[in-house]
Amino acid sequence: MVGSYSAGAGETAMAAWDDQLQLADVQAVLGDHDQETGVLVMPPGEEFAVEEPPVDEEAAAERQAEIAGLLSRFNQHLHDRTQHHLGYPYNLDFDFSLLSRFQSFCINNLGDPFIESNYGVHSRPLEVAVLDWFARLWDLNKDQYWGYITTCGTEGNLHGLLLGRELFPDGIMYASGESHYSVFKAARMYRVKCVKIDTLISGEMNCADFKSKLMQNTGSPAIVNVNIGTTVKGAIDDLDRIITTLEECGFADRFYIHCDGALAGLMMPFIKQAPKVTFNKPIGSVSVSGHKFMGCPVPCGVVITRREHVNVLSTNIEYLSSRDATIMGSRNGHAPIFLWYTLNKKGYRGIRKDVQRCLRNANYLVYRLKEVGISASLNPLSNTVLFERPKEETFVHKWQLACEGNIAHVVVMPNITIEKLDNFVEDLAAERAMWYQDEGCTPPCVAKDIGHENCLCGDHNKKARMS
Amino acid sequence: MVGSYSAGAGETAMAAWDDQLQLADVQAVLGDHDQETGVLVMPPGEEFAVEEPPVDEEAAAERQAEIAGLLSRFNQHLHDRTQHHLGYPYNLDFDFSLLSRFQSFCINNLGDPFIESNYGVHSRPLEVAVLDWFARLWDLNKDQYWGYITTCGTEGNLHGLLLGRELFPDGIMYASGESHYSVFKAARMYRVKCVKIDTLISGEMNCADFKSKLMQNTGSPAIVNVNIGTTVKGAIDDLDRIITTLEECGFADRFYIHCDGALAGLMMPFIKQAPKVTFNKPIGSVSVSGHKFMGCPVPCGVVITRREHVNVLSTNIEYLSSRDATIMGSRNGHAPIFLWYTLNKKGYRGIRKDVQRCLRNANYLVYRLKEVGISASLNPLSNTVLFERPKEETFVHKWQLACEGNIAHVVVMPNITIEKLDNFVEDLAAERAMWYQDEGCTPPCVAKDIGHENCLCGDHNKKARMS
Repeated sequence: MVGSYSAGAGETAMAAWDDQLQLADVQAVLGDHDQETGVLVMPPGEEFAVEEPPVDEEAAAERQAEIAGLLSRFNQHLHDRTQHHLGYPYNLDFDFSLLSRFQSFCINNLGDPFIESNYGVHSRPLEVAVLDWFARLWDLNKDQYWGYITTCGTEGNLHGLLLGRELFPDGIMYASGESHYSVFKAARMYRVKCVKIDTLISGEMNCADFKSKLMQNTGSPAIVNVNIGTTVKGAIDDLDRIITTLEECGFADRFYIHCDGALAGLMMPFIKQAPKVTFNKPIGSVSVSGHKFMGCPVPCGVVITRREHVNVLSTNIEYLSSRDATIMGSRNGHAPIFLWYTLNKKGYRGIRKDVQRCLRNANYLVYRLKEVGISASLNPLSNTVLFERPKEETFVHKWQLACEGNIAHVVVMPNITIEKLDNFVEDLAAERAMWYQDEGCTPPCVAKDIGHENCLCGDHNKKARMS
Repeated sequence: MVGSYSAGAGETAMAAWDDQLQLADVQAVLGDHDQETGVLVMPPGEEFAVEEPPVDEEAAAERQAEIAGLLSRFNQHLHDRTQHHLGYPYNLDFDFSLLSRFQSFCINNLGDPFIESNYGVHSRPLEVAVLDWFARLWDLNKDQYWGYITTCGTEGNLHGLLLGRELFPDGIMYASGESHYSVFKAARMYRVKCVKIDTLISGEMNCADFKSKLMQNTGSPAIVNVNIGTTVKGAIDDLDRIITTLEECGFADRFYIHCDGALAGLMMPFIKQAPKVTFNKPIGSVSVSGHKFMGCPVPCGVVITRREHVNVLSTNIEYLSSRDATIMGSRNGHAPIFLWYTLNKKGYRGIRKDVQRCLRNANYLVYRLKEVGISASLNPLSNTVLFERPKEETFVHKWQLACEGNIAHVVVMPNITIEKLDNFVEDLAAERAMWYQDEGCTPPCVAKDIGHENCLCGDHNKKARMS
């Protein structure tokens, strides 16, 4: 059918599209609510099928109204889903209305943040200001660091681990089994042998196992992924002990450490008792997500490394009048504006307040869950609350919980209020009473996931469960 | 300095930040204009340094006004740069004001577009609708294709070439020397041997050289990158001849072809005489950029492959309740909304009109350049006009031209009007008269870049240059 339309036909209708959509007095049918969960149902997929704009003017106007209606329903749906979100580490509380004017520009920070390309519609000065802030946070001077704003945490990990491989081409990668999936993807992409390290029940890397696996591979340098907050349990690998272990095993000058700080990388610096991620220690790179603790409409992240490392990676690209040291070439120039605005607005002080509130609220959630007899746990200094996986998928879906095996988690982000947590616990307790009302149907034991002391299953804490 | 602020101080000022910024009657000093180029100068980088919001209320209000002023100047600067842009293949002509409301959501299509994850704030139905449209454009049925909306053209190439490597782990990569830099980056990342093929003067792959290099490596399968529009010259590799060459050299069932259609991949289907990119031919994947011909505020792209290929890449990720078959894990959910809106608004008919206008205007530009004595050329079916590189970097910078060696290019995108081209040619002709006014200072010969017939240097066409 391609190219089968007569040129010029229906132009009027097309030209007037925007105006009419803006003005259309659309009586959008705002969709149905699911009977069981009360969640607003998105229009079915087929309704979104792309259609050729009709040539006939009346039909075109009708289609425009239909599009506007679809977008309104979609907007409502996203609003509803945002309100009912608990499971992923995204801070959904932001107001960037002042920045909406920038949506009319195609902002592309292509190439290196520190080398201006010929394309002028970019936000490098804001990007560099954000990078400076993060380099300072992790104790690297301006003239000693290199970094960029990435598309997401995965790109930060891909970049850090690629640096490690380029510095140690015959290196072996080490990562705990609870590392983010992007770490194992990197090993596969880069054709690097990857050794999986056992974890403690907290989710933290088991350094005894790390040691024994290092000793089996003393001939090859080590490229180590260190988790500053694992995806599922929010566990922090012990950076100091990992470094000591490497040194003890004779890897003194033959290792590269990448710290994956997706969520907690931006929380740790604001907690006095927390282990410190800093370039004063022998680490190679740190990455953190921008849409997680800070909050951002688009996924993004920051990766910071030592300036001398990045030279192994970069290639001059004359076409860009820049050099190519990033994973992606074209880079979203809006993300730096969002991050820049948030940092200026909140500052260290504002972020620290957010961190403190999240930790407080996470402890509150564990208390409330246990109070109603639900197994739950929380690593120290973490905002990721683990608990017994809800039996019904509709409930998981309604609250958008992330699950693995017998456990689910809620990440208590800055947008999660006490009120929302109360609603959630009440909803869960009420549903759960129905799931387990029959004799012989009991909640699962989660002792091996979160420890005996946190498990309130029949065997482990009959008393608490009955209270 | 981290954490050295007293908790709770300055809260009022912080809370009122947004309101005050919105309402502030900012008398923004809109920056100076460069004397030479007339271009608005962006505030210097230091002015954007992130600062901790002051505790003192008055100081905080002052800082807020300063921020608002900076953003206003930055907005003006981007506006100016957008108006003076000619060198990169970005369509800067779009109006997405109807979609601005979506900026208040953190939209993340994490994981696979076809498998719903538990995170509910996503735009998968729109993404799939866009993918369906592209699959249809390239002749793959709904049940036969897989694909996703990428962050940029680079991600599309990284994905396509990774599929090739996973299907043929001992394959050798082949790409013409004028391929996009991401292709060679992929080879390095993936640890695949890459053989560079010579090009014709048009920029197209030299199939004789391809053949001779294939014959030197008959023992290994071939992973071939085919350019549907090279970055610098807009040249189209001859897909049919490449396939025939592979078959003739005995690679019949041992090759994978990825088509890099960054810009022209979306133009070719709308030009009757153009070679056809289609999955009816034995190709493995096609990628195209979304911010190029279609226009989009954020860089993005589309990659489409055969469904059976993607299984070699995917890994189930329980945490996401999805599978991991993309390069990035978190994915910008706004990009699909922009693309969906544009496709519905323009349709095949609208895009074809854009293509026709661009080709017409590109021919007009070549005519105008030659008319004033400037060497220029244009590949058939291309909108990338090559010409003698302007002598002064300030001029290159002003019009944001992309340059390589002795040549520069203008990509005539849908937002480039005849009027803008006229202004450009007049500006260039006037400046050039000054650059070359002295005896002995002559424009460079560009015959080896764009052919004798297009070169108007002293040696090649004295007469034309003097006219």
